[in-house]
Amino acid sequence: MATTGDENGGLLGVVHDLPFESSVGYQLRMANRATQRFLQSKIEPHGVTTGMWYFLRALWQEDGLTQRELSRRIGTMEPTTLTALTAMEKAGLISRERDLQDKRKLHVLLTPKGHALRAELLPLAQEVVQQATADFTPEDKARFLGYLAAVQRNLADVPDPDGAA
Amino acid sequence: MATTGDENGGLLGVVHDLPFESSVGYQLRMANRATQRFLQSKIEPHGVTTGMWYFLRALWQEDGLTQRELSRRIGTMEPTTLTALTAMEKAGLISRERDLQDKRKLHVLLTPKGHALRAELLPLAQEVVQQATADFTPEDKARFLGYLAAVQRNLADVPDPDGAA
Repeated sequence: MATTGDENGGLLGVVHDLPFESSVGYQLRMANRATQRFLQSKIEPHGVTTGMWYFLRALWQEDGLTQRELSRRIGTMEPTTLTALTAMEKAGLISRERDLQDKRKLHVLLTPKGHALRAELLPLAQEVVQQATADFTPEDKARFLGYLAAVQRNLADVPDPDGAA
Repeated sequence: MATTGDENGGLLGVVHDLPFESSVGYQLRMANRATQRFLQSKIEPHGVTTGMWYFLRALWQEDGLTQRELSRRIGTMEPTTLTALTAMEKAGLISRERDLQDKRKLHVLLTPKGHALRAELLPLAQEVVQQATADFTPEDKARFLGYLAAVQRNLADVPDPDGAA
């Protein structure tokens, strides 16, 4: 019943194949997935989900960011940001405060508990990077980061299909 | 109210910072997100979501794979696979057939419509890869794919927290 396709990138009719092994999109997805799962296994015992993780890191870098600014930095849509922040508030990691000057702005502030997690969890993030790039020379690592930045730059002009104007 | 954190990777107490610019996990996530969004903008006009996309590609390579085998190839949990396949069935792209020898196995088969999309959509995937790596030399591209494979290999021994035994 199953017919084995042409997995080696040859011609099938007029359409070139794009085997998973040489597909940047697929490999990016799989590498990202592996990294997120590893991270998850490290941080979940501390009550933090991968959904909260990057918001927490952004706030460790700069406490008091607005919801909108957090969305921009993490590259999430506002509803996703709201879901994560609601869970973080419930977990006692953040509080939200309306801006006194501009009432439309909501600032996100770490609680002492949210602050304290930094010393506990940031070393785990280092471990993830360490493990993911275990056999990389410093030059490899710099080059890899350069490629990842280039991909983002190359796609940056593309209009975001989800994005508000 | 906002206190600007130490974004340059210096010491804060005893914990080293891990700025987003040099965080492989964060950059992987952002590069993957940019690629998936670009892909989405290309394929959605054809009625295919990014959730269906990699299943479709796996089936174009090898029609008749079982649900379990599809999960393994795409790296998804079985419930995620089921959700995608149900949507694909509803969209008339696949049908499911029980294995005659082993009734626990369900084979996934492309419909003529699912087959026909290959000629239409695979060139779009090529375009995504093209755009994402527009300024890469062939050596850069090979090196980048090598790094992405290395990350997956380096994290492969880690037990999957979601995985069934």
